[in-house]
Amino acid sequence: MKILVIGASGTIGKLVITELAPRHEIIEVGKAQGQYQVDITSEESVRQLFNKVGKVDAIVAVAGNVHWGPLKEMTTDQFRIGLHEKLMGQVNLTLVGQHFLNDGGSITLTSGSLSHDPHLGGASFTTVNSAIDGFVRGAAIELDHDRRINSVSPNVLEESWNIYGPGVPGTDPVPGEKVALAFRKSVEGSQTGRTYRVW
Amino acid sequence: MKILVIGASGTIGKLVITELAPRHEIIEVGKAQGQYQVDITSEESVRQLFNKVGKVDAIVAVAGNVHWGPLKEMTTDQFRIGLHEKLMGQVNLTLVGQHFLNDGGSITLTSGSLSHDPHLGGASFTTVNSAIDGFVRGAAIELDHDRRINSVSPNVLEESWNIYGPGVPGTDPVPGEKVALAFRKSVEGSQTGRTYRVW
Repeated sequence: MKILVIGASGTIGKLVITELAPRHEIIEVGKAQGQYQVDITSEESVRQLFNKVGKVDAIVAVAGNVHWGPLKEMTTDQFRIGLHEKLMGQVNLTLVGQHFLNDGGSITLTSGSLSHDPHLGGASFTTVNSAIDGFVRGAAIELDHDRRINSVSPNVLEESWNIYGPGVPGTDPVPGEKVALAFRKSVEGSQTGRTYRVW
Repeated sequence: MKILVIGASGTIGKLVITELAPRHEIIEVGKAQGQYQVDITSEESVRQLFNKVGKVDAIVAVAGNVHWGPLKEMTTDQFRIGLHEKLMGQVNLTLVGQHFLNDGGSITLTSGSLSHDPHLGGASFTTVNSAIDGFVRGAAIELDHDRRINSVSPNVLEESWNIYGPGVPGTDPVPGEKVALAFRKSVEGSQTGRTYRVW
């Protein structure tokens, strides 16, 4: 399969590529790195990416920032970051990408366990991750020609524990290769509208 | 209790007021109607509202538009409507309103059953409603002084069946007074971080 990975140079992106590369052709995309660059917050930039790459069999999105901080001090603009970057970034890749996805192809988005396991400072993550899993439920019934869409909802990875661990006390981090397997299930499997929880 | 109802002139707003008014002081707020007007998409407008109204015991938000239409043709701008109006509108009321909420007070937001019961054309609703229920889970653990936040997730109301029924075939509409009761549970009860499904 020809698989487009957006966020290819990130921690999860690299693990997903390690898992998929032995059996597939991978196209690495990043904001500043990779074979192609894209600003996923811009519909126009996403369209330019697909016009260059052409049709693919799978789109894997592991990109998008969210603001972490106490609700008590959070501003509208801070809250909007996650909606604009992680949520609309992945939605843009779907809205545009659906027209460049071969029959039977798949889209895999990334949410996260904060959707149901909230921590202080993470209200925006909880919202965005819930929204992405919801989007997948809604979009799955509208894609035709056997095209599918799922999300992977990882807990904090062992590989990222030093960075995110202090913010999520009592969390049992997960091995990155387990997260990568969930992406493989979405890409190589046949399910749709599902969220694969790696918790 | 002094209760601020935003979206007071809407179908659900009126039903909630009928349910709560016999025991509470209701302040009716709308975009163009009611005792006070507010543009919930603007943090500044929401702040002006609370500066005028002062401290309250409960905030009930039953407002916000979302775009309905096929995913195949949906543009980024159309998808953004629901994020900007229903989601960020209710989030703005929370981010600002938390500072005007008396100890033990509550915030009640409105999502909807499309979060888990998707229909063709409703992908943006499914996303926004999931996000609101998620936001409530995240925000609940950050509100202190016994302040609470919940959402009510109604199915299509019998009262709105003529408008929304054709888009959701096979749906069993719910009586509006049952939806109003869920708002009463959130306002007069003691739970937090919950979504009351009226399905």
